[in-house]
Amino acid sequence: MLRDPSIKYRPFPQVDLPDRQWPSQTITKAPRWLSTDMRDGNQALIDPMDSEKKQRFFDLLLKVGVKEIEVGFPSAGATEFDFISGLVQNGKIPDDVIVQVLTQSRRDLIETSFQSLKGAKQAIVHLYNAVSPAWRRIVFNMSQTEVKDIAITGAKILRDEAAKQPDTDWHFEYSPETFSTAELDFSLEVCSAVMDVLKPTPGKPIIFNLPATVEAATPNIYADQIEYFGRNIPNRDSVVISLHTHNDRGTGVAATELGLLAGGDRVEGCLFGNGERTGNVDLVTVALNMYTHGLDPKLDFSDIDEVIKTVEYCNALPVHPRHPYAGELVFTAFSGSHQDAIKKGFAAQEQRNDQYWDVPYLPIDPKDLGRDYEAVIRVNSQSGKGGVAWVLEQDKGLKLPKRMQADFSRVVQALADETSRELNAADIWGAFGQHYHLADDRPYELVDYDEARGQVGGERVFAGRIRLNGEERSVSGRGNGLISSVIAALRDETGLELEVLDYQEHAIGHGADAQAAAYVECRTADGRTVFGIGMDEDVATASVRAVLSAANGA
Amino acid sequence: MLRDPSIKYRPFPQVDLPDRQWPSQTITKAPRWLSTDMRDGNQALIDPMDSEKKQRFFDLLLKVGVKEIEVGFPSAGATEFDFISGLVQNGKIPDDVIVQVLTQSRRDLIETSFQSLKGAKQAIVHLYNAVSPAWRRIVFNMSQTEVKDIAITGAKILRDEAAKQPDTDWHFEYSPETFSTAELDFSLEVCSAVMDVLKPTPGKPIIFNLPATVEAATPNIYADQIEYFGRNIPNRDSVVISLHTHNDRGTGVAATELGLLAGGDRVEGCLFGNGERTGNVDLVTVALNMYTHGLDPKLDFSDIDEVIKTVEYCNALPVHPRHPYAGELVFTAFSGSHQDAIKKGFAAQEQRNDQYWDVPYLPIDPKDLGRDYEAVIRVNSQSGKGGVAWVLEQDKGLKLPKRMQADFSRVVQALADETSRELNAADIWGAFGQHYHLADDRPYELVDYDEARGQVGGERVFAGRIRLNGEERSVSGRGNGLISSVIAALRDETGLELEVLDYQEHAIGHGADAQAAAYVECRTADGRTVFGIGMDEDVATASVRAVLSAANGA
Repeated sequence: MLRDPSIKYRPFPQVDLPDRQWPSQTITKAPRWLSTDMRDGNQALIDPMDSEKKQRFFDLLLKVGVKEIEVGFPSAGATEFDFISGLVQNGKIPDDVIVQVLTQSRRDLIETSFQSLKGAKQAIVHLYNAVSPAWRRIVFNMSQTEVKDIAITGAKILRDEAAKQPDTDWHFEYSPETFSTAELDFSLEVCSAVMDVLKPTPGKPIIFNLPATVEAATPNIYADQIEYFGRNIPNRDSVVISLHTHNDRGTGVAATELGLLAGGDRVEGCLFGNGERTGNVDLVTVALNMYTHGLDPKLDFSDIDEVIKTVEYCNALPVHPRHPYAGELVFTAFSGSHQDAIKKGFAAQEQRNDQYWDVPYLPIDPKDLGRDYEAVIRVNSQSGKGGVAWVLEQDKGLKLPKRMQADFSRVVQALADETSRELNAADIWGAFGQHYHLADDRPYELVDYDEARGQVGGERVFAGRIRLNGEERSVSGRGNGLISSVIAALRDETGLELEVLDYQEHAIGHGADAQAAAYVECRTADGRTVFGIGMDEDVATASVRAVLSAANGA
Repeated sequence: MLRDPSIKYRPFPQVDLPDRQWPSQTITKAPRWLSTDMRDGNQALIDPMDSEKKQRFFDLLLKVGVKEIEVGFPSAGATEFDFISGLVQNGKIPDDVIVQVLTQSRRDLIETSFQSLKGAKQAIVHLYNAVSPAWRRIVFNMSQTEVKDIAITGAKILRDEAAKQPDTDWHFEYSPETFSTAELDFSLEVCSAVMDVLKPTPGKPIIFNLPATVEAATPNIYADQIEYFGRNIPNRDSVVISLHTHNDRGTGVAATELGLLAGGDRVEGCLFGNGERTGNVDLVTVALNMYTHGLDPKLDFSDIDEVIKTVEYCNALPVHPRHPYAGELVFTAFSGSHQDAIKKGFAAQEQRNDQYWDVPYLPIDPKDLGRDYEAVIRVNSQSGKGGVAWVLEQDKGLKLPKRMQADFSRVVQALADETSRELNAADIWGAFGQHYHLADDRPYELVDYDEARGQVGGERVFAGRIRLNGEERSVSGRGNGLISSVIAALRDETGLELEVLDYQEHAIGHGADAQAAAYVECRTADGRTVFGIGMDEDVATASVRAVLSAANGA
């Protein structure tokens, strides 16, 4: 890296707009969405989509509810042309969907573009040429006047070609390409000249797409540029301002959102931010950001995993595990304090009487995206008792008492430190069974017991058979309840002293399949605390098992 | 997805700050950087770092030039404590680097935190508690007063523990956690109360870290919050405002940048945006954004691939191919018009006399990050002649004449369409050799020719031996130059009529290893245009080979 980057790079100039209004605005409705996945996205792929993949992507966009789709660059070659023409000819475009094609400002290319759309009910032809000083100087070696003439010439050909196919409802989009790095007044001059040719009306406005072709400034500058453009373009009511941001500085979503505050009407982008270099703005994130603010984005991501699957297949690029709303890890908490807060949030949500989503660390309900809560809490060495308890509750329906959560979380912590990896539900369940002697219930094992003897003279009598270190024996004991009678039996018959400190029980599941889970916390003769758990279809048997589980730990 | 999200979600409230100043500001210097990779980043990993990985990450941060490093949560367990304590004890912390540890506001946890830093020259102890209404209500069930008391109590313990270890230069950071979703005036109240205890001065300021714990609003709102806080916190000159953004809405970088415009002094984040859920803000992107605006970020990413390698190893998470500045594809153009513009940009850069970087579609010089230009232009079915020509020039040093570029790009386009995948340099070189008969030079093959005969009576004489369809024969011809004499020889001896339309030649490489490349464009008797190329150490021989190459195409 250069010691002093100022030798090579320059600050981006401010826009002179001291009375800017956008920072006080809020987004109040969904914009028009244009997917350019099949154009700007496709041209940036290592392996561009073949026609099977293009069709699949097109179908996905319809399913998601995108109504304006840039389907390609028909003059670029036969593959592009045939696909676009095929969509039109084969009636694959629903009546409420409009396709858009991109063309440079050359007669032959524009003519080819119109030919590809022959027979369409409606279509948008998107004309562009680059207007910024760097492009004028480096790429085209042209003056401002020459660059403007290219736009005017293109606009006239659009107008004339449209007139030749009067059965199609033609719409026009013009991009002063490289807008964000061009002189604002020059972009306005070129756009005005294009309007003079195409004569848009409020009923049939022209779309001006204002690209941050390469993102080159903080996103507030883009918003200033959009507000400035909107204030100064003539006949604003005959103009649709379309935002087209890229993500070179990692602020493409922000630039689009601030651009909407600044008066943008329409957003061009790609699903999950595919597109040239760092990608176009991610339509999924912009839409779901609106959704989490209570605004209907008019796009449907209720089965986001299906959307991811199709996009990853077509683009052959992954969605990152930390990608907003879509990544594998974005609704996951490993850390103990986060897990604890989330658990409390879910509990509060159940108890509260309002309908609002308010769960710590979860900006959206994963179920709104078709995901379940299982992945929300995952357990590794950073996790506390909350996370472990969550997994046992989600996976087995067990609601451990708080002190037992702490007891078991020490076991899990040690296992996580030892294995140095994430622990899945099976790991945790295995450790649980081992620690509380569920699998291998030695030395104490229940064979059966006699419910019938029950209550005798105000006292409860427990009479049963247990195996102690494999040797079966009959035991009996008396107490003021079932638990204390079992404790008494153990004391009298095997000499094990246990004092019950706490006891809890709850049902797992509902109806005929319901089970009972019982938890006991006991103190041993030498002052240690041991926990036990019992599960059984029968509530009483669960309790007996819980005591024996504690006895095994003692 | 719910039909109407307004049933479940609410808009984020505006900040009442009509005279906000930040939208007119620019970033003029690098902030203080705090890496929380080993804390907020680590706690969000599927497999948290073991101590070997932690050490590696720490060393990387030093190499990059990070001076403030949050090394962990020492009270969380023995692994964390031992690592931090080991850094201090083993003298692994350079004098100009300060480590930071995080603690909740509990006496035992704070004491443990101080113990872990025993013997440090200097350190930052970072206290936090959550202050927002959702956390107060759902997680803690506490009033504002109770929450404030937690902060005050913690601050007092910090003060007292610091006094017990006077040999260390202690600094304090306090986070009103969940700041961005809390009442601004309450955060100010709590921070003021903490200041009353810790009594910061301009020489020893307190760091107030203002987290967007979960990103919940457009980034301009975060900037408003920061400006509001900065305007209203007492003794502003004794306060360092630290920005800590997450990326739940995909605008974490923007929130940090706008927060800097609004007065932020310090930035907390992780390399490549690791961290809880969607990640913390990406320090690499924020720093390189400054760099491309001519500001020295004081972080060194001049070997970005090494940084990526280490971070991917330690986090076991990938850097996405479209990640700003770092992704595999972010300096790559596949599309023909982009490739053409980039080629022209490089050419203009060479010719221009100023030092500024101004290449279309490349916001930064890849070489500043330790990358070369080879990956800038890659070829698939979307590519035009510019891209193909670039690859031949980069890979073989060939500078094809423009019409020959067009001729060969049709060959490559057909191959790309046929294979439906990216073409690498070997693919392109293979097609080039085949199309221009470099490998299998049939029917015409040069055996040798006689330089000696040279010039005879104002005419050039070519006398040589060629193989025609495998059969060797002597040929000779006359012309006003070498090329025309070879053409004449072919015509007279084999009946092949070729008219030379263009001829170009250039050196490949320098000095003793230099080669010559010669290109001819010819018209055949039936009016077709054929191109030929010849390469040889000898300029004249290259020309002869070029003519035979054209003859083979004819």
